[in-house]
Amino acid sequence: MQRFAQVIRIRPDKLDEYRRLHADCWPEILEMMRRQNIRNCSIYHRDGLLFMYYEYVGTDFAADQARFADDPTMQRWLAVTAACQQPVDSADGDGWAPMEELFHLD
Amino acid sequence: MQRFAQVIRIRPDKLDEYRRLHADCWPEILEMMRRQNIRNCSIYHRDGLLFMYYEYVGTDFAADQARFADDPTMQRWLAVTAACQQPVDSADGDGWAPMEELFHLD
Repeated sequence: MQRFAQVIRIRPDKLDEYRRLHADCWPEILEMMRRQNIRNCSIYHRDGLLFMYYEYVGTDFAADQARFADDPTMQRWLAVTAACQQPVDSADGDGWAPMEELFHLD
Repeated sequence: MQRFAQVIRIRPDKLDEYRRLHADCWPEILEMMRRQNIRNCSIYHRDGLLFMYYEYVGTDFAADQARFADDPTMQRWLAVTAACQQPVDSADGDGWAPMEELFHLD
């Protein structure tokens, strides 16, 4: 199992929409995430920051990440959530920025 | 089991020290955390932000949190780590600020 954490900003005027979207996440998205071997995934908010933690239980992370890239429902979900988000300044791309693990206790 | 996430800032000149402290965390601290019923605890860094994620497996969170408040080693650990940290603006106290869980997938 591999642990991942990522950070992104939420647009202030989109927090309520983002909260609603995730309180009632589309079942197809949850199903695809599980088939991507993602487990124990949580998203947290404070002060305009979003923090995501999850565990990957597969054996080919890149392949699993790419698995549903062409799925129309996944594309729609990523579009509506990306419209709420704003990458942190240091992010390389246009999405969630990986964080460095400093500590772990099992 | 209850999940928790918290956020705090790291003083820029203290990141290396904080990284070293946590890469080689004192065994007594790890032992006390386990006796506090904390499991799967990770701390992540990016852009001066620290995120902590952990799971609580006990039945009295407040009592477990207070269990080692008077322990000299715990007090020393909290002093050296607090000297590296800076609460986020919205924090109520002088330490880690709780985050709101927006999403969870088992």
